[in-house]
Amino acid sequence: MFANTPSPPYTAVIFSSTIADDEGYPEMSVRMAELSQQQDGYLGIESARSAEGFGITVSYWRSHQDAVNWKKVGEHLLAQKRGKTKFYNDYRVRVATVDRDYAKPA
Amino acid sequence: MFANTPSPPYTAVIFSSTIADDEGYPEMSVRMAELSQQQDGYLGIESARSAEGFGITVSYWRSHQDAVNWKKVGEHLLAQKRGKTKFYNDYRVRVATVDRDYAKPA
Repeated sequence: MFANTPSPPYTAVIFSSTIADDEGYPEMSVRMAELSQQQDGYLGIESARSAEGFGITVSYWRSHQDAVNWKKVGEHLLAQKRGKTKFYNDYRVRVATVDRDYAKPA
Repeated sequence: MFANTPSPPYTAVIFSSTIADDEGYPEMSVRMAELSQQQDGYLGIESARSAEGFGITVSYWRSHQDAVNWKKVGEHLLAQKRGKTKFYNDYRVRVATVDRDYAKPA
């Protein structure tokens, strides 16, 4: 669902991926979502995956440094390794600064 | 699928949404994807929607101005109006500058 992010600027990490093998993937995703929420500077996450296996997850952070710190957390490093060797056929990571945002008018 | 974006910096427009009514929505999406490709500064698009109706579409542009120009195209304005009144329960738009990107190692 929607992330309740504060006023810009803040950091968005756009992760797009295609799944190769989803055995154990849902559990890993849930655990990483839980763990990321405990990190300093975490603002929220949004995620969607289509039936064909293409997915986009955007995690939001107070700063690029907070996103880098999360990338280096031990258990997350292990998950990234499993991602490379097992779960993902391919992926892209884009680190961006959100300059402007708005929602559907009420 | 993956967008083949150039080296950063470039613009990402992150559009997250929940669907209220999808009658006519696939046709509109396809048409808007076609039309956006013809715009100056268009770099690519990535899109995923889960079975539960939450979706993320990220369109990539050479600059914020190119993204703003696309927002103002007549037929796209009509689509945005239909989006507000018919298709989307809710949405968020975030305009961001991609500072860094990388892919899965070969």
